[in-house]
Amino acid sequence: MPGHTFDEAIALDTTEAKGVLRGHTSPEWANMVGPFGGVTAAALLRAVQLQPDRIGEPVSLTVNFAAPVLDGAFDIVAKAVRTNRTNQHWVVELWQEGSVRTNATAVFGTRRDTWSETEQVWPSVPAPEDIAPTGLPEIVVWAGNYDMRYVEGAVPGQDSGPAESSTTTLWARDKQGRALDFPALTALSDIFYPRVYLRRGGMSPAGTISLTTYFHTDGDELAAAGGDFALCRARANRFSRGYFDQSAEIWSRSGELLATTHQLVYFKD
Amino acid sequence: MPGHTFDEAIALDTTEAKGVLRGHTSPEWANMVGPFGGVTAAALLRAVQLQPDRIGEPVSLTVNFAAPVLDGAFDIVAKAVRTNRTNQHWVVELWQEGSVRTNATAVFGTRRDTWSETEQVWPSVPAPEDIAPTGLPEIVVWAGNYDMRYVEGAVPGQDSGPAESSTTTLWARDKQGRALDFPALTALSDIFYPRVYLRRGGMSPAGTISLTTYFHTDGDELAAAGGDFALCRARANRFSRGYFDQSAEIWSRSGELLATTHQLVYFKD
Repeated sequence: MPGHTFDEAIALDTTEAKGVLRGHTSPEWANMVGPFGGVTAAALLRAVQLQPDRIGEPVSLTVNFAAPVLDGAFDIVAKAVRTNRTNQHWVVELWQEGSVRTNATAVFGTRRDTWSETEQVWPSVPAPEDIAPTGLPEIVVWAGNYDMRYVEGAVPGQDSGPAESSTTTLWARDKQGRALDFPALTALSDIFYPRVYLRRGGMSPAGTISLTTYFHTDGDELAAAGGDFALCRARANRFSRGYFDQSAEIWSRSGELLATTHQLVYFKD
Repeated sequence: MPGHTFDEAIALDTTEAKGVLRGHTSPEWANMVGPFGGVTAAALLRAVQLQPDRIGEPVSLTVNFAAPVLDGAFDIVAKAVRTNRTNQHWVVELWQEGSVRTNATAVFGTRRDTWSETEQVWPSVPAPEDIAPTGLPEIVVWAGNYDMRYVEGAVPGQDSGPAESSTTTLWARDKQGRALDFPALTALSDIFYPRVYLRRGGMSPAGTISLTTYFHTDGDELAAAGGDFALCRARANRFSRGYFDQSAEIWSRSGELLATTHQLVYFKD
């Protein structure tokens, strides 16, 4: 879709150097500091997709948020560490002002028919049409790009108090109707506000340090999900001395488990 | 403990090159092809621990198994990509015969007192003393280093047939009584045989591609777990067209969630 803000945010131009692509942050995808981590992760994945010697589709991605990404231009360097018969291992770095701001490893692979089964259980939830669209506070600019409908665990308000569970379940879709693809699915992996807000009943300093996404779908199945709502569910396992982890699932509306995704988050209080 | 096989398997010597350490595979930790992935991951983590400019303790580790590790010597190259005030980002590579065999990213950090809580539920299981020690088939040499007691989901025998659940829960401890530390906890992350065996009722070609571990403990808490049994539980989320994922928890016997760990696995049938 020409002019779509997500496509602009992950647009990458080739440069004279092999494997080096240039992009720039987008004001529409700003977080409170720097860009939304999900869109940075999406740009890193896209940098691999654009490599002429890339084989297959994404199966695994780990993104480490090493330093804040500054507003403006960035260079992404993608390097194939190993090419096997059915998969390929990539190392990717986002550079600004002479230092690595974000680094990633990715595995791409070709898929083939095997025994298949989804063991994770599809949550029984109301349809998105039966839930009022809300979202995140306006200060979180990027969230304005999504139509978010919380089934449970919406961001706490001033009088919410602590919640007993860190689980958030929401329907989310691109507001402009952009269809899901691998970069968009990568961005959805990071759509959850920090679980500590929910457990503590308010906002406090927190930020993702490392994000891992496992892709369970191929491009065709993903395309079938189109621009419809995806069901996103996250919960924490342990909060301990400044860090907590989160595990999440992203489902298509028709019940396909598109991705499982995990992250380690820094928090302060 | 002098002469302990695990310590020998992760022993690394300094070399003349900055950040480069030399190790060698151990026959006692062999898998069906090459070494046990868990001990390779442990050696990569240890390579960071040994760096003179390392700060803090491990909080996150992702290991990508790009190519088979050959029996014999290997070089591990560890590089600090970014040093922040309270954490440090590392990129680590295991080299043999001029190519990267395994690569990893790690985040180390300093911990400080914050609100803490474990949300994941401790499974109610019989004590290890009430379960017969079994293990894995003898062909899996490394497994002989552990005392394994399966609560559920032991490796299928010839007449087992497919299981409805991919969940395996086992008590595991080092047979020689070696105490848990971060490398040993890393190795435990990979103690589970492939979930597809359980669901399909038999062994078939399968191998871990990417392994991520989040550490929820500091060195003191970990030391308190000593050489006692740890409770390890894993389950798959989706098997689809040649790949499946697995999520797992490692608990100390006293009920501390020491680590959560996830992996993407290749399978053939």
